[in-house]
Amino acid sequence: MTKTSNPKFRRTLIIGPGLIGSSLARAFRAEELSDQIIGYDANPKVGARAEAINVIDQAYDTIKQAIVGCDLVVIAAPIGAYNEICNEINNFAEADTLIIDVGSVKGAVTEIAQSLRDDIYFVPCHPISGTEQSGPDAGFAELFRNRWCILTPLARDDDAYKKAVGQAEELWRTIGADVEIMDAAHHDVALAVTSHLPHLIAFILVGAADDIETVAQSEVIKYSAGGFRDFTRIAASDPIMWRDVFLHNRDAVLETLGRFSEELALMQRAIRWGDGEALEAAFSRGRALRREIVAAGQETPRPNFGRDPDAGQDPENTPGKS
Amino acid sequence: MTKTSNPKFRRTLIIGPGLIGSSLARAFRAEELSDQIIGYDANPKVGARAEAINVIDQAYDTIKQAIVGCDLVVIAAPIGAYNEICNEINNFAEADTLIIDVGSVKGAVTEIAQSLRDDIYFVPCHPISGTEQSGPDAGFAELFRNRWCILTPLARDDDAYKKAVGQAEELWRTIGADVEIMDAAHHDVALAVTSHLPHLIAFILVGAADDIETVAQSEVIKYSAGGFRDFTRIAASDPIMWRDVFLHNRDAVLETLGRFSEELALMQRAIRWGDGEALEAAFSRGRALRREIVAAGQETPRPNFGRDPDAGQDPENTPGKS
Repeated sequence: MTKTSNPKFRRTLIIGPGLIGSSLARAFRAEELSDQIIGYDANPKVGARAEAINVIDQAYDTIKQAIVGCDLVVIAAPIGAYNEICNEINNFAEADTLIIDVGSVKGAVTEIAQSLRDDIYFVPCHPISGTEQSGPDAGFAELFRNRWCILTPLARDDDAYKKAVGQAEELWRTIGADVEIMDAAHHDVALAVTSHLPHLIAFILVGAADDIETVAQSEVIKYSAGGFRDFTRIAASDPIMWRDVFLHNRDAVLETLGRFSEELALMQRAIRWGDGEALEAAFSRGRALRREIVAAGQETPRPNFGRDPDAGQDPENTPGKS
Repeated sequence: MTKTSNPKFRRTLIIGPGLIGSSLARAFRAEELSDQIIGYDANPKVGARAEAINVIDQAYDTIKQAIVGCDLVVIAAPIGAYNEICNEINNFAEADTLIIDVGSVKGAVTEIAQSLRDDIYFVPCHPISGTEQSGPDAGFAELFRNRWCILTPLARDDDAYKKAVGQAEELWRTIGADVEIMDAAHHDVALAVTSHLPHLIAFILVGAADDIETVAQSEVIKYSAGGFRDFTRIAASDPIMWRDVFLHNRDAVLETLGRFSEELALMQRAIRWGDGEALEAAFSRGRALRREIVAAGQETPRPNFGRDPDAGQDPENTPGKS
């Protein structure tokens, strides 16, 4: 895609210039997608910081002030804040504004978006990318590259809305994402499996390890390279954002959690009764799936995620080979 | 530590020159710990491969042949193979041989080790390091550097055995590990928390995701960057090795699994009843614990484990800053 075909906005408002919002601001700048990029955050320190490190041109204290003259608004805030944000957008947005968001739940967002004025176009979006860090300093322009972004358009068939969906799609492609369109309900089930349940399980495992009386926390820390540390990465994610995900995707999460619990009961039983065959069969599925994830470009092929600078050489070039 | 103070062996036998065994062979060579390093593997292809890539000097077809003239034997095989291996060692090892192992369970190993002759000295060891890969090609000399190695010596108070424990300790330190000594029962509980339960949970999550009818496997792969992919790393570990861990550390694993299940029930209830406070409180624990693991040198501070080459810049040097 050449730069001349990029969508082009006059003035973009990022609501929540944290990890994802500031990464979008950086990516928009890198691709010259918007003449101006301004920001608003419920926490004024976050907006000020984003302005101070020049990720946005200016931080505003209210959405009402900020939204004047904007033709693109990005909501990058916890789902629990959407009602209030959309209320402000509905009251103060210019006609023909494109609204996108980055929330991890889409059913609840779609419901809120349906209450907006007809002359503003909300295209719910969810880029499947992020890190365990938070705040404007943690963002980077390449965050969305080679990652999927799922769009769950509203049930509107007016041409203006269809054009807005096309614009949103092009916008994500321009900053390096692959775009998939699906309905919000299916999104919420698929992401319950690939994102929400893994986060919940990681939070639970970290909490449980904290509570075992016979093992000191210092030991949990020292011996975490045995596997535990892998879970602490996603368990270090933003607690507010994740609280809101579980409050707004309850049914799909409880359903996948039910499947997980069944499998857990089976494995517990296999361990109790010493059923080595059942354990081996269950444990043999992981390697092939990981290989496919690597082949799909969604994971590094390097051992230990590439954490160890000395590992992962070409097998033909091992230290023992002379 | 200078090279001249290194323990020094004439001939070292690696039983199982796979990921861990071949990493030890490489590290021993790098530190000139043994004049010769030979290998045996129950799978002759593994031994032949280790010899072909020159990680060991020679591969043997039987322990009986290989062990002649050895003053150090390293057992780097699944726990289920220990009985047979120790039988061979007991029958054919030279007097005064030091035996170490690298098994992830120590109570079961201690029991087997107690049946050995008095003139051979088995010091059970567990280096807390590894990758999800297997085989001689996957090893590297630096695998043990800055990782803990736990020793659980037998209840023997003869001077020759005490000297052997000292030698084992020095050996691990020479190749870069930190050494901790504890009893086997405590090891098995601590590692159930930091390694065995995390692996079990990862295997279960990957299995459960495979079985959700409403979500295609292609979707699990595409959207795995939402968190799921983190679990696939340890779920890609050697199924036989892990089967044997769970068969031989049943009680400690079932106990920690019980704690995990309690926490899971609490979170399930909090989601069902929309208890945002309980969720937020539970989710807030992960960040501090991860920070401590990073501070203890057991994890990389880079976001996403350093997977994304473009992320994790110095915050003062963000792309937006000019």
